[in-house]
Amino acid sequence: MPTFRLTVAYDGTGLVGWQRQASGVSVQGLLEDAFGALAGAPVAVHGSGRTDAGVHAAGQVASATLETRLPADVIRRALNARLPPAVRVLDVAQAPDDFHARFSARRKTYRYVIWNAPFAGPFAYRYAWHVAGPLDLTAMQEAAGDLIGRHDFTGLQSTGSDVHTAVRTVSAAAIVEKQGPAAAAIVPIVGLDGGRLLVFEITADGFLRHMVRAAAGLIVEIGAGRRAPDSVARVLAARDRALAGPTAPAHGLWLMHVEY
Amino acid sequence: MPTFRLTVAYDGTGLVGWQRQASGVSVQGLLEDAFGALAGAPVAVHGSGRTDAGVHAAGQVASATLETRLPADVIRRALNARLPPAVRVLDVAQAPDDFHARFSARRKTYRYVIWNAPFAGPFAYRYAWHVAGPLDLTAMQEAAGDLIGRHDFTGLQSTGSDVHTAVRTVSAAAIVEKQGPAAAAIVPIVGLDGGRLLVFEITADGFLRHMVRAAAGLIVEIGAGRRAPDSVARVLAARDRALAGPTAPAHGLWLMHVEY
Repeated sequence: MPTFRLTVAYDGTGLVGWQRQASGVSVQGLLEDAFGALAGAPVAVHGSGRTDAGVHAAGQVASATLETRLPADVIRRALNARLPPAVRVLDVAQAPDDFHARFSARRKTYRYVIWNAPFAGPFAYRYAWHVAGPLDLTAMQEAAGDLIGRHDFTGLQSTGSDVHTAVRTVSAAAIVEKQGPAAAAIVPIVGLDGGRLLVFEITADGFLRHMVRAAAGLIVEIGAGRRAPDSVARVLAARDRALAGPTAPAHGLWLMHVEY
Repeated sequence: MPTFRLTVAYDGTGLVGWQRQASGVSVQGLLEDAFGALAGAPVAVHGSGRTDAGVHAAGQVASATLETRLPADVIRRALNARLPPAVRVLDVAQAPDDFHARFSARRKTYRYVIWNAPFAGPFAYRYAWHVAGPLDLTAMQEAAGDLIGRHDFTGLQSTGSDVHTAVRTVSAAAIVEKQGPAAAAIVPIVGLDGGRLLVFEITADGFLRHMVRAAAGLIVEIGAGRRAPDSVARVLAARDRALAGPTAPAHGLWLMHVEY
């Protein structure tokens, strides 16, 4: 049976996240139902990892193995015909038999988008976290840099996580300010005059539960002057989630791409 | 009592439109409630015109007269604090006592956005009409040009409209294809690879009910080759709504700005 690799984009607004749940609409559930209708038998779809309710994806990757002779592009069109418009399969390609979206993943990149202005735009509010007060971008950029490297990220994971080890290697972490057309490529900018878009991107070999949102929340605390500039380093050293402060909301988070 | 001119942007998804209705959330209702809380008394808010359920606005204009000593920018912030994020007051300015958003309006510009591709993007589907088949842009551009001038637009208004005259003057009407960052400034382009964004803009001294959506629907019929290239001219001459074909859906329509 051939194995396929899917690239999937979705607007997380109104979804319960990637993983199939007892109730609510999940991306995995939608894809498995669409594949099942196509194959005439249940098909398991594996994602590169879970995304929480409200989190968006520009390039989630999934894998599925099924009995079919349909070419990849026909599968892509058949899936999209069955999916709601908020979930789109951008690409389907045949993959090696042992390809598994989760276990084969080498690195992932997430983006956390912050709209820093007196008020949120009416079209961006689903896709960026609106932070009203002044933010010190330089302090935030230095704090993001402190995430780079091989660290124990216990201080930035949700309590109650059940993982073998909290050690991860962050290969890149940076915050940039985007303006004009470059900002438009990130979120819809209608009504966003008079503010700035801060885009935090982080690449790692793996992420713990809520790790990017905890990091984004802490970096905004630092930018707002409510925590010391070296707080990222301190939270990592102390391995104490309580030190890191509030978790940033789900709707500012985007899974951008997965490397294999 | 001072009169204020408001510039308002809104995401029409989930709204019943501009006008207050017996049930459902309207922009006028939200603004009147927000003003009422501010003034401690009922305040009437007049828009430049109605927009239908699902129609978006980047620059709707409204007027309101109320007893207040608050400066315009304080009013703007107080209104936004009470409004849901899908509706934002971009600007408040004191206006002449006789300013009325509807009666003082000289011209309005609407945009109708068409996403022409095999499938819709997961972030653009609320803001553009997805048309899957091939479209002849040149034929559409010529058809749009036929709208320009002083015409009786009976053939492009909803049946059952109750207006004094259907004669309007269209000062500009054109369709352009947008790509890359220019497309991103129109709708969120994530997942929109492999297609094109066609943007129809029309400016007139007034619009009849469903006039832009009827024109957009007819122009797409022409672009798809289902109607003759001169159909706009024929529909206007015949003044027969039945000739014009299907009305384009509300969610591709944007009220861009109002001139006074």
